[in-house]
Amino acid sequence: MHSYETIYDVIVVGAGHAGCEAALAAARMGCSTLLLTINLDAVALMSCNPAIGGLAKGHLVKEIDALGGEMARNIDATGIQFRILNTRKGPAVRASRAQADKQLYRLRMKRVLEQQDNLYLKQGEVTGLYLEGEELRGVDTRSGIRFLGKTVILTTGTFMRGLIHIGLTNYPGGRAGDLPSVGLSDQLGHLGFQVGRLKTGTPARLDGRTIDFSRLEPQYGDDPPAPFSFSTERITMPQVPCHIAYTNPRSHEIIRSGLDRSPLYAGVIEGIGPRYCPSIEDKVVRFPDKERHQTFIEPEGLETVEVYPSGMSTSLPIDIQIPFYRSIEGLERVEIMRPAYAIEYDYVDPIQLRASLETKLIRNLYHAGQINGTSGYEEAAGQGLMAGINAALRVKGKEPLVLGRSEAYIGVMIDDLVTLGTKEPYRMFTSRAEYRLLLREDNADMRLREKGHDVGLVRDELFEHFLRKREMVAAEYERICSGRLAMSDREQEFLARHELVEIQKGTSLEQLLRRPEVTYKELAEFDDVSRETPHEVREQVEIQVKYRGYIERQLDQVERARKLEGTPLPEEMDYFSVNGLTTEVREKLAKNRPDTLGQASRIPGVTPAAISVLSIALKAKG
Amino acid sequence: MHSYETIYDVIVVGAGHAGCEAALAAARMGCSTLLLTINLDAVALMSCNPAIGGLAKGHLVKEIDALGGEMARNIDATGIQFRILNTRKGPAVRASRAQADKQLYRLRMKRVLEQQDNLYLKQGEVTGLYLEGEELRGVDTRSGIRFLGKTVILTTGTFMRGLIHIGLTNYPGGRAGDLPSVGLSDQLGHLGFQVGRLKTGTPARLDGRTIDFSRLEPQYGDDPPAPFSFSTERITMPQVPCHIAYTNPRSHEIIRSGLDRSPLYAGVIEGIGPRYCPSIEDKVVRFPDKERHQTFIEPEGLETVEVYPSGMSTSLPIDIQIPFYRSIEGLERVEIMRPAYAIEYDYVDPIQLRASLETKLIRNLYHAGQINGTSGYEEAAGQGLMAGINAALRVKGKEPLVLGRSEAYIGVMIDDLVTLGTKEPYRMFTSRAEYRLLLREDNADMRLREKGHDVGLVRDELFEHFLRKREMVAAEYERICSGRLAMSDREQEFLARHELVEIQKGTSLEQLLRRPEVTYKELAEFDDVSRETPHEVREQVEIQVKYRGYIERQLDQVERARKLEGTPLPEEMDYFSVNGLTTEVREKLAKNRPDTLGQASRIPGVTPAAISVLSIALKAKG
Ligand SMILES: Cc1cc2nc3c(=O)[nH]c(=O)nc-3n(C[C@H](O)[C@H](O)[C@H](O)COP(=O)(O)OP(=O)(O)OC[C@H]3O[C@@H](n4cnc5c(N)ncnc54)[C@H](O)[C@@H]3O)c2cc1C
Ligand SMILES: Cc1cc2nc3c(=O)[nH]c(=O)nc-3n(C[C@H](O)[C@H](O)[C@H](O)COP(=O)(O)OP(=O)(O)OC[C@H]3O[C@@H](n4cnc5c(N)ncnc54)[C@H](O)[C@@H]3O)c2cc1C
Repeated sequence: MHSYETIYDVIVVGAGHAGCEAALAAARMGCSTLLLTINLDAVALMSCNPAIGGLAKGHLVKEIDALGGEMARNIDATGIQFRILNTRKGPAVRASRAQADKQLYRLRMKRVLEQQDNLYLKQGEVTGLYLEGEELRGVDTRSGIRFLGKTVILTTGTFMRGLIHIGLTNYPGGRAGDLPSVGLSDQLGHLGFQVGRLKTGTPARLDGRTIDFSRLEPQYGDDPPAPFSFSTERITMPQVPCHIAYTNPRSHEIIRSGLDRSPLYAGVIEGIGPRYCPSIEDKVVRFPDKERHQTFIEPEGLETVEVYPSGMSTSLPIDIQIPFYRSIEGLERVEIMRPAYAIEYDYVDPIQLRASLETKLIRNLYHAGQINGTSGYEEAAGQGLMAGINAALRVKGKEPLVLGRSEAYIGVMIDDLVTLGTKEPYRMFTSRAEYRLLLREDNADMRLREKGHDVGLVRDELFEHFLRKREMVAAEYERICSGRLAMSDREQEFLARHELVEIQKGTSLEQLLRRPEVTYKELAEFDDVSRETPHEVREQVEIQVKYRGYIERQLDQVERARKLEGTPLPEEMDYFSVNGLTTEVREKLAKNRPDTLGQASRIPGVTPAAISVLSIALKAKG
Repeated sequence: MHSYETIYDVIVVGAGHAGCEAALAAARMGCSTLLLTINLDAVALMSCNPAIGGLAKGHLVKEIDALGGEMARNIDATGIQFRILNTRKGPAVRASRAQADKQLYRLRMKRVLEQQDNLYLKQGEVTGLYLEGEELRGVDTRSGIRFLGKTVILTTGTFMRGLIHIGLTNYPGGRAGDLPSVGLSDQLGHLGFQVGRLKTGTPARLDGRTIDFSRLEPQYGDDPPAPFSFSTERITMPQVPCHIAYTNPRSHEIIRSGLDRSPLYAGVIEGIGPRYCPSIEDKVVRFPDKERHQTFIEPEGLETVEVYPSGMSTSLPIDIQIPFYRSIEGLERVEIMRPAYAIEYDYVDPIQLRASLETKLIRNLYHAGQINGTSGYEEAAGQGLMAGINAALRVKGKEPLVLGRSEAYIGVMIDDLVTLGTKEPYRMFTSRAEYRLLLREDNADMRLREKGHDVGLVRDELFEHFLRKREMVAAEYERICSGRLAMSDREQEFLARHELVEIQKGTSLEQLLRRPEVTYKELAEFDDVSRETPHEVREQVEIQVKYRGYIERQLDQVERARKLEGTPLPEEMDYFSVNGLTTEVREKLAKNRPDTLGQASRIPGVTPAAISVLSIALKAKG
């Protein structure tokens, strides 16, 4: 194996959603970065649905953006339908979602990578890590060249020993049409990593020309479309609708008739699939009484006839797939352009990672994305970004950046992964976060912009824009707290109109706004200043006022938890010598090796009593 | 294997350059057509150089266009530098060439396919033909579905048992980053096809950011760029330059130092490579005294930094590739984005084909493109178009369309292939055509538009445009033959200025134009009509006049050959019972089974005497 003469600061393996963010972050932080991937024509390809965001995932995207990542800007530039979900619900669960033009998404991301200083993009399949003794030194590639690097980030997605299933037929592939990655996961196993098997699936891609859209219900995006990124001014791509269709009892009949040839039910697939993202056969089996399941027919791009029927993934044989899709009203004549399939792949249990996403076994090796057992582009991108940041910080000799559970969904996700590990594909839900009211999409910048700027990812110009916003929010909040009603004619007229007759002179605008009957926008009816408040400022002020009680309660909880989170557990801690712990707890702690007391407290079976014992033991030690 | 219920008229296997033309032609001729390919994201991908056309290849593209194919229109819509080569030479060897934006080229072709009526595009790898007894009925795919069709066209390119070589390392792939096709060629071998092994190679793709273009010589395209297609009015894409660079003695030293690890020289590659498109190591070995070799650094697109160093293909190991490319002036710091490699693949000897591209062994099976041992996008597209036309004509119960050697380069190519077979990659050269002055780029429409319209590929509107042009050419030719100089003042002044004092009153414009000193354009100085003649008409008239002598001589030769070409040899002809033939000739004829006496005459070893004997034998028979 010939060694390339350059020693990179960071080598990223895989240019999927995790790898792209990782490489961009490291390069933007000034590290010389090599991004290796199997096929340069498939950079940032969306393996499954042509969309970014959605419940809890939208939060991840905004956080990635706030920290200085690329995903939000990429979808803003290539999105063809934007929608904010849950607009009627509280701000904590409001979430952005956008359809992408899949080809444009991929091409723009490649362009951004190519144009990034310090970043070198090369086609190559990594077949193994290169270690000298126990020291990681770089990676070996199939074409016979060894690349040297100070740190390595693996983001192999669904490619390691990828095996594609369609009915009882199966064959190797990293994704339909793509080569698998062979060799790397065997080596990881030999090195002591717990390599497991997961599976996921995708629906068929259908020929839009053979769908009778007039019989489906169109669903339009928001007008005007709201961008994901805090730095995008306006969406300029043409916008198109999706369409809603439904399965029916006959569809379910067809599915049932194929179950004996389902690779899952026949036991051919050993990998564990995502519970929350079931195939249509799972839904039919699990909910036998349900008369219909909904699907969105999503366009894959502005200029292609390929469409994606969401939620209709299956690994049943093709002769079941065809009548199944055709049983849906409006799809009676539909032609399948790419069959649905399931894929099994190797992952590495993330319990073997630190909170920085560095592996515990091998120093300077990081894992991010689907290799950690997660599923979803946004989850991958969030991890990729953090791994890229932390590899760069390591190179610079700095402490890692770890986001707390009260700071970001990214923090919740990584903490869940490294603390609990996973035996099934992990995806983000708002329910996984205990401080949901603090972790909103709208305040992702308030939470994270500064951290992004501190590590060098957020450019000064963008950061200054953010600082101005933060000041304006503070000033406006201050203003409405101190500004009081003088009962002018305009004010009185306003109160009367909103049936707020009991309001007294001297009430502050803040108190008024706290009333459920009043929105910030309505204040403008008598308050000239608020008419001119920019939308982004107004939004923050309004939410802070309306949800103050809840927010404060969560902040209290965070404060109480902070002590635990801030107490590190020494790496060499000998849990078996700590008196007062049960053997079960000792074993769990020894196996999981949590970084902090907070992490320890989230390991199932580790009781609050055990945490107290530990806390005392630590004090005695140090 | 489950059979899909539709019975297609034509099934095309592979959406490379041959497959796209084949499928479009069949569908446009009204046949229900299925196009199957391994990866729908790699339709019409340019495996090697990002360019269309060039010497003799430009002719093929114009012919494809005249017949109603897509290649010319696709490059017109996505080309980023157009140049006409050999403008100083005669019209026979003038040729068009254009750089493509590789991604746009691919995406536009996919769009055209998707939007074509009667055409269905599906992702799937064909693993075998499906025969009932000796009758071809369809194809089987890896995902477990059988597609039924009346005719099948195989256009598998470099994918059948593709094996990628980089130095002494090798691994399966249809192209770097792509899955190979496995199984199909084994079956073809069992069915009696002569499956052989060829190889080809491609240079590295380089990172344009690491090239010092200021030290290279830019080469701009023509301004304005001239379109390929007879139906394109204007090129609207932005145009960019290429750059010229050179190897030097040190480059050659480096190449020599790696020869012991060349898969070719070490005997690892068994396939035969293209002689005329040698790798850089071939050039260095074959021309040891040459001090430098030229390369054009070609952009792969408007928005990518990837560039293609033409003529610099190699299968040497990466540790040789790197210093080699860096030894070129201006490329001292160059980074390789995709390594150079060679690929070996299975092909089927085209001697087993009829002139219609139908196989002799299996009725209704056609082969087109690289599977026939050719190399090059244009060669593939030309065959694909003809196979598509002929499969469609078969479905309609009509006679095949076979282009003669005097009608088209496509005719020359297919006749060469099916008459002589090939043991090495075949590419088109002008020198392969005996009637070069008849087969010009400029008159491809004159030669073929009508045939394209007859089979239903050229739309009426375009055909009428052509008819008008043809009429205008005839009328203008007629006019300049009959118009005579009256020695007006303007005429006299013209003759004096051009030092044509010996010209007499009564000389026709045609006679005047025949003089080397006078161009058609200059006639306008005294002849008002010619000033208004459209460019396309002027060009035809001028060439007809200037080259009349040569053209007439070639037409005579064609006339003489026509008798041979027009005499069919019965399929069941028993050459061993023909008296007067040598055993050698008998064996050759029996093996090759030529369709016509003309074809027989081109089989090496079949003498003119033997042709006379055959001709007499035929007369006696019929
Ligand atoms: C069939 C299918 C169905 C899916 N269904 C869903 C779903 O329903 N819901 C959902 O949320 N998500 C789904 N996904 C998952 C989603 O695609 C992934 O979560 C996301 O793409 C993961 O991003 P990643 O960066 O980790 O990996 P990927 O996007 O898979 O990218 C991995 C990259 O690494 C490269 N690579 C791999 N190995 C090597 C190597 N050895 N050397 C060099 N490069 C390498 C690959 O070429 C690729 O570019 C599905 C994926 C597939 C394939
Ligand atoms: C490394 C390399 C170097 C080359 N160098 C040169 C060169 O120097 N000069 C030159 O003129 N040409 C060169 N070429 C050749 C040029 O790319 C081909 O001549 C041209 O692309 C042939 O077109 P095609 O349509 O026959 O095949 P391709 O363009 O190869 O397309 C074949 C298509 O068929 C599909 N396919 C294959 N098997 C199956 C199957 N079983 N089922 C379904 N689909 C299938 C593939 O997915 C692909 O889409 C090179 C090619 C390669 C790969």
